Amino acid sequence: MNIGIDVGGMSIKAGIVDNSGNILAKYSVPTPRDGNESFSAAVKKAIDEVLKIHPVEKISSIGIGAPGIVDRENGVLVYSTNIGYKNVPIREFLGKEYGCEVYVENDANSAALGEFYASGDKKNFAFITLGTGVGGGVILNGKLYTGSNGVGCELGHIVTHARGTKCGCGRSGCWEAYASVTALMRFTEEARESLNIGDEKISGKTVFDEARKGNAAAIEVRDRWIEEVAIGITNIVNIFQPEEIVIGGAISKEGDTLLLPIREYVDANEYCAKHNDIKITKINLPRAGDSAGILGAAYIGRNIKE
Amino acid sequence: MNIGIDVGGMSIKAGIVDNSGNILAKYSVPTPRDGNESFSAAVKKAIDEVLKIHPVEKISSIGIGAPGIVDRENGVLVYSTNIGYKNVPIREFLGKEYGCEVYVENDANSAALGEFYASGDKKNFAFITLGTGVGGGVILNGKLYTGSNGVGCELGHIVTHARGTKCGCGRSGCWEAYASVTALMRFTEEARESLNIGDEKISGKTVFDEARKGNAAAIEVRDRWIEEVAIGITNIVNIFQPEEIVIGGAISKEGDTLLLPIREYVDANEYCAKHNDIKITKINLPRAGDSAGILGAAYIGRNIKE
Repeated sequence: MNIGIDVGGMSIKAGIVDNSGNILAKYSVPTPRDGNESFSAAVKKAIDEVLKIHPVEKISSIGIGAPGIVDRENGVLVYSTNIGYKNVPIREFLGKEYGCEVYVENDANSAALGEFYASGDKKNFAFITLGTGVGGGVILNGKLYTGSNGVGCELGHIVTHARGTKCGCGRSGCWEAYASVTALMRFTEEARESLNIGDEKISGKTVFDEARKGNAAAIEVRDRWIEEVAIGITNIVNIFQPEEIVIGGAISKEGDTLLLPIREYVDANEYCAKHNDIKITKINLPRAGDSAGILGAAYIGRNIKE
Repeated sequence: MNIGIDVGGMSIKAGIVDNSGNILAKYSVPTPRDGNESFSAAVKKAIDEVLKIHPVEKISSIGIGAPGIVDRENGVLVYSTNIGYKNVPIREFLGKEYGCEVYVENDANSAALGEFYASGDKKNFAFITLGTGVGGGVILNGKLYTGSNGVGCELGHIVTHARGTKCGCGRSGCWEAYASVTALMRFTEEARESLNIGDEKISGKTVFDEARKGNAAAIEVRDRWIEEVAIGITNIVNIFQPEEIVIGGAISKEGDTLLLPIREYVDANEYCAKHNDIKITKINLPRAGDSAGILGAAYIGRNIKE
């Protein structure tokens, strides 16, 4: 039995996961933001509470997916802009407490692992989250690929618009600067007048909702943004030729409205566009969804070892 | 002892390669373009001749790097636009002739393997060739990565200019359409007037040569093209975080004029730009050079097995 911990800006979720990928119990606590000790204590609290709900004879491993920079080798949560801890030796702490192996991974990679294991028997797989930025993780030959320095597969930072809009990473024209929900909201704001939405507060859903009412300007903004997403997804097909790409993030709840035009664009534009016999990549929505973080975290150790 | 065969549009080169990557003998024959039988006979001729120069007691394997589509599983050269063979069962043919294992690989991947083995002890490595198109190959965790359908890592077909110049692959704005030597020649042609080169026949070297004479317009065209190359190289850093990227193709003979500005751009723009402690990717010129194809082909079997 493995325990997966999904560390978010708002809450720390712990889950007990069996070897078939079933989450048997979950418990969540608010994320403290006042340093290492209260953070570690909160993680322990989440684990203890979930073990009360579902007592476990032997914990095989605990995995933690956390934002920011992690040190996989030493099991340390190095740094997160949002949460305010620094160099938390979580492997040492939890190892002593629970007498088991402890693994750490970046949260986006952890969620990618969760969707990977929920996807069935795949070898090469990519998970993309559309949110404040464009994140994700890639599994190649069944293993999470993180490059030679642990920060590989920053797919949001593939430039799709050379010399384009400035990105948070410092570069210009990154995919993230055009395909994130932040970018969608920027496009929406720029079109506010023609959208005829007055002073309405803009969210990622605005143009989707307006488009459903038949607002032509909204349809245009929505479709343009979806094409930006699809351009990057097509790049990922041409790079990895994975069996599947799963598109997640809250906006993926738009379902077929988002998914179908992406599939159509990729089908027409990927490198194998004219060779149906070798086309391989399926594009789908998340299966694990909100549980991907817990599930993937519980599987970090398994992915390293198997 | 392994034999590597590098199939090109003009010649078929055979080489005997020892286990330390030394090419002990080479022989080349013209590439016939009149079908399967004369092609197979030419490959056999090249092997027989090179074995006369350097007799070998036991051939461990023969590897063939060939343009176009190859069927690795069955050892078949499926199709090449330039050479005019179709479904050559080269494993069956050479296996009977020489009683050894026979491997086939795409020529760009084969050259990537050659540069990989010439690069020393690396795990993650990318080789890019700038020529008519932008090709290359990627080695991850020590193994050539070709995706789930054998056509992965078409890095020239990552879009860097969304909705930009039409590419040969059918898509718009591919890196290849901006960073190939073909693109450089297009930029040169577009600037012909300001370059003040009259009716001179344009090649990839034109703006490099003119820039050396102090031609300001040529410097501008050259630098803009080098930046297009660097934008894509930075993408490759952000995707794979490999230990090394080697930039090949005839234009790489321009040496530091090409290499140094690329290094500078990548250094300033990669995802780890502000984190010197985790920067890992070195960018270099080829080591195996013209022998990369033979060397890599000889090592195809080794790369699969080791």
